[in-house]
Amino acid sequence: MSDFLIPAMQRLSPYVPGEQPQGKQYIKLNTNENPYPPSNRVLDALSREFISQLNLYSDPTALSLRHTIADQYGLSPENVFTANGSDEVLGFAFRAFCDASHPVTIPDISYGFYRVYAKLFETEAKQIPLNEDFTLPVDKFLHVNTTVAFANPNAPTGIALPLSDVEKIIASNQDHVVIVDEAYVDFGAESVLSLLPKHPNLLVVRTYSKAYSLAGARLGYAFGSPELISDLDRIRNSFHPYNINRLTMLAGIEAMLDRDYFDECIHKVTSERKRAMTVLRSLGFEVTDSQGNFLFAAHPALSGKAYYEGLKDRGILVRYWDEPRLYAHIRITVGTPEQMDALFTATKEIFAEV
Amino acid sequence: MSDFLIPAMQRLSPYVPGEQPQGKQYIKLNTNENPYPPSNRVLDALSREFISQLNLYSDPTALSLRHTIADQYGLSPENVFTANGSDEVLGFAFRAFCDASHPVTIPDISYGFYRVYAKLFETEAKQIPLNEDFTLPVDKFLHVNTTVAFANPNAPTGIALPLSDVEKIIASNQDHVVIVDEAYVDFGAESVLSLLPKHPNLLVVRTYSKAYSLAGARLGYAFGSPELISDLDRIRNSFHPYNINRLTMLAGIEAMLDRDYFDECIHKVTSERKRAMTVLRSLGFEVTDSQGNFLFAAHPALSGKAYYEGLKDRGILVRYWDEPRLYAHIRITVGTPEQMDALFTATKEIFAEV
Repeated sequence: MSDFLIPAMQRLSPYVPGEQPQGKQYIKLNTNENPYPPSNRVLDALSREFISQLNLYSDPTALSLRHTIADQYGLSPENVFTANGSDEVLGFAFRAFCDASHPVTIPDISYGFYRVYAKLFETEAKQIPLNEDFTLPVDKFLHVNTTVAFANPNAPTGIALPLSDVEKIIASNQDHVVIVDEAYVDFGAESVLSLLPKHPNLLVVRTYSKAYSLAGARLGYAFGSPELISDLDRIRNSFHPYNINRLTMLAGIEAMLDRDYFDECIHKVTSERKRAMTVLRSLGFEVTDSQGNFLFAAHPALSGKAYYEGLKDRGILVRYWDEPRLYAHIRITVGTPEQMDALFTATKEIFAEV
Repeated sequence: MSDFLIPAMQRLSPYVPGEQPQGKQYIKLNTNENPYPPSNRVLDALSREFISQLNLYSDPTALSLRHTIADQYGLSPENVFTANGSDEVLGFAFRAFCDASHPVTIPDISYGFYRVYAKLFETEAKQIPLNEDFTLPVDKFLHVNTTVAFANPNAPTGIALPLSDVEKIIASNQDHVVIVDEAYVDFGAESVLSLLPKHPNLLVVRTYSKAYSLAGARLGYAFGSPELISDLDRIRNSFHPYNINRLTMLAGIEAMLDRDYFDECIHKVTSERKRAMTVLRSLGFEVTDSQGNFLFAAHPALSGKAYYEGLKDRGILVRYWDEPRLYAHIRITVGTPEQMDALFTATKEIFAEV
């Protein structure tokens, strides 16, 4: 930290991304990446000829991309916002709707970044504890009289709220924006998107990082009323109008159009999730009914950190937490069947030693 | 605008990017893109195999890229920051060093985004008018007791300050960060980089968009003391740790390593700049001694807007302004010799009609 940093920024608590090992080859089940490559349509489109046009700026309105996404969901491009990853969408939303006089209400256990954005924009984050069983206490999110943000399905628990509960939260907070982060929705949870026409305060945030196998391309999007989308555009055009590069923009179009490949990847990941859940439970783990591309598990005999370390020694990375409520838990990304078999083998070895 | 937007964000004046025509094919001399494609090393590296790994996140520390840039300039990776375009670098710097109690001093005519960032972070921007001849009034930037930001060479004038003047500004403001935006420095101006070890308050901002023909890849970087760089990283990790996608990261490494191609492009652009300057002056234009990849010109017989419209009718895009001090002026990106010949022909036609 320098002597020049302003006091508010000295108080930040920056996010710590999941381990991205540079040297040794690990089986990476720690950052919820899709284990399958992007669609062949993406690989075909990003040709040498297309790449040779990188001397030209990308379209700052991302119109073709927004059209493609809108068409897929029966909406208009005016309902669609795109950005450099869903983190950027969320960052812009916090800037648009939150500041020192406009707090935000979030779950205590959720995507860790909500708290970080709040500090970046000097906003109070009112944290509501999840229930003992890690479900969201819906009643406590009603009439909170602030902006609201939560993930559905939630991270890292994987637990999804039914649509009726999500609607209660939106309807009871109609004077404030309710941000529903659907980063993992493609893996089976019920989306709130159908409620968009009824609720001008609803902002639905999505990502290409998980279901579309494009984590490394950085592409996020959001759905909302034209007015909400224009708010986000106002922030974007005050920060970085050319926020999406040419290659990612085209990759996003092609990936969205390849529905067969999307369905195939979702099927493979959700089948493997089901198998892994059964195996882990048979090994004595408590596992939530995750609707994401990851499992949230705890074993009575071993802390999350100890299990993490045992796996790391065996060449497998998962994620654990130092936070008290998550001390027993671990998050395991659903990989390929071969990767998961390696996880099961390593797990049996570890527990044989406990 | 929605009813939910917070008051401070209602007061924004978002940047208006240069025209990016989607339909008709224009000769684009309006957004200071490099007319030549990126290095063959970039095209070779972004192979189908590499693209097929987009399911994996990029390295959030961008270590290889920062190493490559640092090596080129004899610095350490701790002196190098990278981001999604130099606009993102600048945005993070404004967030780190400016707020309602920490104003910034900027020239009245410069990169238009400095004012926009100031509003985004609720910062007073103290604007110091350029001299009549569009040079920077160095004395008025001494001991200003605020953060300082300016472009060198300046945009859209192309006029560069000598190193001794830049150092005066840095040395006289040592309790505040001085941001020197060297987006166009590769085209001939003297860089302030050699002064980095002497001045912990110096932040030098650069881009791959101009000299490296990678505007469409979105990649910016900055040099500073390890402490200043860690300040920017603190903001980045509170906003978007995975801010650079995998493809752009590798493109940036390969483009930086291909010095021969860099030199060749710089030579072609600066030679053409010289020729265009001579031709335009012979046609009665006043043209500044631009050190950028663009010309800043005015003709006594025609407003900037009228000249712009005449060129647009003839299939050529340039940039004009509605601001009073720039009413007579136009900014013309230096294109290929063929593109510039088309500009000269169109210009002669336009002035034959005046």
